[in-house]
Order: sequence, then structure tokens, then C-alpha cells
Amino acid sequence: MNHKIKWLRDKISRMDMQGMIITNPTNIKYLIGVDAEGILLLTRKENVYITDARYLEKVNKMLTIDDGIIVTNVMDVSKDDYENFFLFCENVGFEENHLTYAKYKEYIQKYKINNFVETENIIEKQRMIKDSYEIECIKKACEITDNCFKHLLTFIKKGMTEKQIAWEIENYFLLNGADGVAFDTIVASGPNSSMPHAVPTERKIVSGDIITIDFGCKYKGYCSDMTRTIFIDFVQDYIKPVYDLVLKNQELTLKEYYDGANVRIISKMVENDFKLNNFDFVHSLGHGVGLDIHEEPIITSKRGDFLLRENMVITDEPGIYISSKFGVRIEDTVVITKSGAEILTKSTKDYVVIE
Amino acid sequence: MNHKIKWLRDKISRMDMQGMIITNPTNIKYLIGVDAEGILLLTRKENVYITDARYLEKVNKMLTIDDGIIVTNVMDVSKDDYENFFLFCENVGFEENHLTYAKYKEYIQKYKINNFVETENIIEKQRMIKDSYEIECIKKACEITDNCFKHLLTFIKKGMTEKQIAWEIENYFLLNGADGVAFDTIVASGPNSSMPHAVPTERKIVSGDIITIDFGCKYKGYCSDMTRTIFIDFVQDYIKPVYDLVLKNQELTLKEYYDGANVRIISKMVENDFKLNNFDFVHSLGHGVGLDIHEEPIITSKRGDFLLRENMVITDEPGIYISSKFGVRIEDTVVITKSGAEILTKSTKDYVVIE
Repeated sequence: MNHKIKWLRDKISRMDMQGMIITNPTNIKYLIGVDAEGILLLTRKENVYITDARYLEKVNKMLTIDDGIIVTNVMDVSKDDYENFFLFCENVGFEENHLTYAKYKEYIQKYKINNFVETENIIEKQRMIKDSYEIECIKKACEITDNCFKHLLTFIKKGMTEKQIAWEIENYFLLNGADGVAFDTIVASGPNSSMPHAVPTERKIVSGDIITIDFGCKYKGYCSDMTRTIFIDFVQDYIKPVYDLVLKNQELTLKEYYDGANVRIISKMVENDFKLNNFDFVHSLGHGVGLDIHEEPIITSKRGDFLLRENMVITDEPGIYISSKFGVRIEDTVVITKSGAEILTKSTKDYVVIE
Repeated sequence: MNHKIKWLRDKISRMDMQGMIITNPTNIKYLIGVDAEGILLLTRKENVYITDARYLEKVNKMLTIDDGIIVTNVMDVSKDDYENFFLFCENVGFEENHLTYAKYKEYIQKYKINNFVETENIIEKQRMIKDSYEIECIKKACEITDNCFKHLLTFIKKGMTEKQIAWEIENYFLLNGADGVAFDTIVASGPNSSMPHAVPTERKIVSGDIITIDFGCKYKGYCSDMTRTIFIDFVQDYIKPVYDLVLKNQELTLKEYYDGANVRIISKMVENDFKLNNFDFVHSLGHGVGLDIHEEPIITSKRGDFLLRENMVITDEPGIYISSKFGVRIEDTVVITKSGAEILTKSTKDYVVIE
């Protein structure tokens, strides 16, 4: 049986569950490496992956005997089979943050489950700590992203639209070994940069523009995430103090990211420094990165204490946004090590001015 | 107030609900045109969109006074506000096929909801019937897809990998007016074509190959979906009867798609013809296409009767898959009209042989 499934079986057993239904596709990919439509059952003795005919051959090719997973076509599962899966199970776990209410009701009936028990993100929490393979994949995704940024510095020209730049980024990823983008690329120029989640428009780049570029790719399923804010021809005087303040806090945060650090306090530190300068901090300071672009942990002061641990991969991305005028965000993806944060996105954070 | 919100208010009122919480992002985009993270509340008198600071400016720009939507920052909503939203509502609707079990429990508490009532996909069902703007967008997406196919016929060469062809498709979309791909492009060559949901690999195209290409783009948020199965140098003799059988059924289906037709019977017709020839039909015959690539209705014999209606946009995509050997699928996107099915993807379905 693969070691992640073994871990999960131990974990639920200690929580007094005799079975579990896993429906979150990212968690299934994490556990058994399978990228299809289906659900994974841990029954008393077996691990069963139920999929449909569209995916059967593909899934059977991805799994080996050693994985210890029985792959079943949903069309071959009878009413009795469903009722037998968890026959002598008192408690069966489910993913309450993924399963819809409709499926929750359906499953209780279909599987004749006694107690259907919330599992409080046990798999997501485990996913926070990356193994060496996962870190290597994220490093590679970050390297491609850095190279893409270098390419952009010679590609971006006045007169181009935000959309053209976003396309070039996606194209670069596709042609340079990435699986594709990790999320919808943000290229926000001039006043558009005041929207943290701007969608690329037909606005043309002009002299004096500020451009926020938030982008990342996937490599073997693992994401990178980087933001750089750059300038065309010159840096407007009114922008400089904001850029410097964001960068100062981005770098301070990097120093505070280490094994054992409390992210609530780090976020509060940045918030307070922004407030001292009369700016609000409108989004979280960062988030985990892995198979999903946004994973646990969320780096914020709005939740309780949370301590960073070795081999977590997270972002550091403070930003300031001045409505209808401009915005500045600077973001790195980092891995937490015993001795601090190792920065995986290495592109320069000095003023970058394109002429 | 916009007419879609008016429609929904009438609808829930007739279902004896005094309010509704809409959480499915595609439904929110459909109702108010907003593409962000947030939830939409229809309270007794108001329509409230709750989002966060990252999206506030963007959402405010997208909506006008005429939309009649109050946009609120989630940080400004107090405990009392939550409890007041549905204060005199006996029944409040929710989307049981979208809301997670965890959110279901949270909302009942937070909003102090008396009866939280399932709404049985009322919005998804309405979305099945497209208006003229939506049909125009889908037509445009299909046109770009047809042009991309024409481009592929000169682009594809022996020695290229499946991945290279998939990249070229995505690149073509980005550079020719599409928002991007509508779903992960499938390019499955040789034996890989036997997997209906194959992921593009490094396999190189060789003489005698069959290649299944399933692809589509988005235009203004609306999807296209087309599959063509093509050949390199020549068509293997053992493939011809399978191709002909799939094509015959694909074309028969097109004739059977009209306002009032029962999709259960049409699907059964194809299944039976495949069975007569000793082949299984392993997936559904088609699905709705719109803001989502897979929407209601699902064209299958596995559910009850379902009648097509004018202005539904659906696919017609029979396929036969011979494990580890090869597969053939041919798919069009069509709009149902009074007089039949208007085919929106117009690329040839004759044998296409690339040399």
C-alpha cells in the first residue's frame, strides 16, 4: 500500500473512524497520484477508487499493484456493493469542506452510513508539509517563472496591451516545460493595478505606467506564484514611497518566516506598519502553495496563532492599493527551512524600469 | 434591477421562499455578470453581493445602479447584519449541489435561518436556454475553434509530440481572440486515443497514427467544444468501419436533435447501434455548453426522459474506444432551433489524412 494511504489509515483509525470517503480531487491526486474524476474509499480492509469508463484505462495505467488500490467502474457497483463498503463501520469520515450538501445526503443513504463524521481537513493539513519530490517540483516551477520574467523584460514594449503580455506569459510557460499556468495570469497596468485581482484588458502600456504582474506555472502538477511590479520609462515620484514600503515589509517578512514562527504576529506587523503610513492591508500576507495554488496555511492576522514548520511552501505578498490610482504588490514563493526561508522565486525586486 | 435577478426573485417567490443565498460562481456570473469571489444574497428587499477588498473596485466597476445590487466588503458585515439579512424569512433557498456541508452548517448559524431549503438547480435549469447574446458568444467560440482546426491541418507533422500539438492549440486560441481554452485540450494519438480523457504526452506522431483532438475555447466566458479524429498518411483498414459507425451515429443524432426531442431515446438509439456491432458506448452522448463546458442537460439514456428545447446549446459526441488499441470520437456543438439542430462547429467530418 502506498505510504500516504498508510498514513491516512493510521490517522483516521486514531480518530476512531473505520472508513473514509475522499472526494476532493486534489487530495486524491496527493494520495494516489491519480488525476481523473472519481472518489476514493478507505473501507475496513480495502482501498477502492470508483471512476467511470472514460478514465478506467488511464487510471489502471497510473496505478501499480503496490499502490494497493482496487479500481472500479461506477457502472459495475451494485446497490449491495455500496451498502457493504462500510458494513461494520461505526464512524465513516468525509471531507465537509468539499462534499456538497446534496452529496452528503445522498452518500448517507447510498452507503447506509451510521455516523458520517467531519474530518477537519486532515489531508489538507498533511499536504502543508512538502516532501523532497514536491519541493523539487515547486522549485522547477519557480525557475520557469523566473526565466519567464527575464524574458518579459525584453518582450514588454509601449503600445502592447495587458492581454498581449498575459498571452506571452502563458505561451512562454507552455513552450518551456511547464504544464501550463497555475492560475489566471494578472497583468494590471496604470490605474488597473489598484485592483488586486484585475483581469488583463485591452489597455495599452504607456510611458510612466506601473505594471503589476502576478503569475505562476505548474510543473508536474505543482504550482509557483510570483508577483513583480515594474515601471515603464520612469518611476512616478508618488509611487516610490509606496513601492519602498511594500518592499521593506516583503523583505522583513522573509526574515520572520522560519520554523516555529507565528504567522498571525508577522501579518499583524505588516498591517501595523501599513497603518502607520495610512494604508490598509486588504488581503492576506500569503498562502500555502502546492498542488493547489491556494492551500493551507493562510498567512493572516484574522485567524488564531499558527506556527510555520520546516518544508512548508508559502508565499510572501504584501500589497498596497490606492483606489482608481495604482497598486503595488511584491510576492515570492518560499520554502521554510530549519534556518529560515529559502526564496524560490529569485527575480530582482529592485525598481525595474523598461524603456 | 436586472431581468435575470427579477426572474429569479419571481421564481423563488413562487416556491414560497423569501430569500436565497447563491454561491455557485458560474450562476453569479450568469445572474449579475460578475466574475470574482463572493456570494449573492437575495433578501426580502435587497440584492447584496458580499465580496472582499481584493475585488471591491473591480466589482463596483462591473455593476451599474440599474443592476440594483448592493456591493459589500465582507469585513464590514457585522454579526447583526448577518442575522438581519433574512430576519422575516420563513424559507431561504440555497444551492445544495454547490454549497459544501461545512458552509451549510455555518450559514444556518451565521444567518439564523429558519428553513434552509434546497432549490434543485433552478438557475442551472434556466441557464440551459440561451439568449441571443449567449448564442452569439458560443458561435464566435466555435468559429475560432474551426479556424484553429484548419490551422492544425497545416501545422501537424510526423515527429511532433501530442504536447506540442496541444500547446499550439492553446497558443492559437490566445492569439486569435479567445479568452483561452474552455477545458484541458485532449490530443491522443495511436493507442492513447483509446482513453476518452487522455492527457497529452510526449508520444511522437508517426505514420499510420490516428489522432483524437478534443478542444474548445472560451469567448467572453462562453465555451465551444469540438472533437475530430484524424489520420497520418493513411487510414488503417481496421479503423475504417469504427470511424464510419461513429460518424453515422453522430450524423443520425444531429437529425434527431430538435425542439421537443427526447434525449433518452436518442442516446438509446446510438447505444443499441453500437451494441449491434459489438461495441460499448462508455460515456454520455453529449452535454450542455455555456459558461461552463459541462452544463445541464446531460444527454444520456441513464436518466429519465428529457426533452430538448429551442435555444439549448448541446454537444453530439458519440465515441468508440478499443482498450490499448485506438479510439474514435466525433463531436459538434449545436444549437437547437425550431427546425432542428444548427451545427456551430463546421469543420469537416470526412476522413482527414495528413501527409
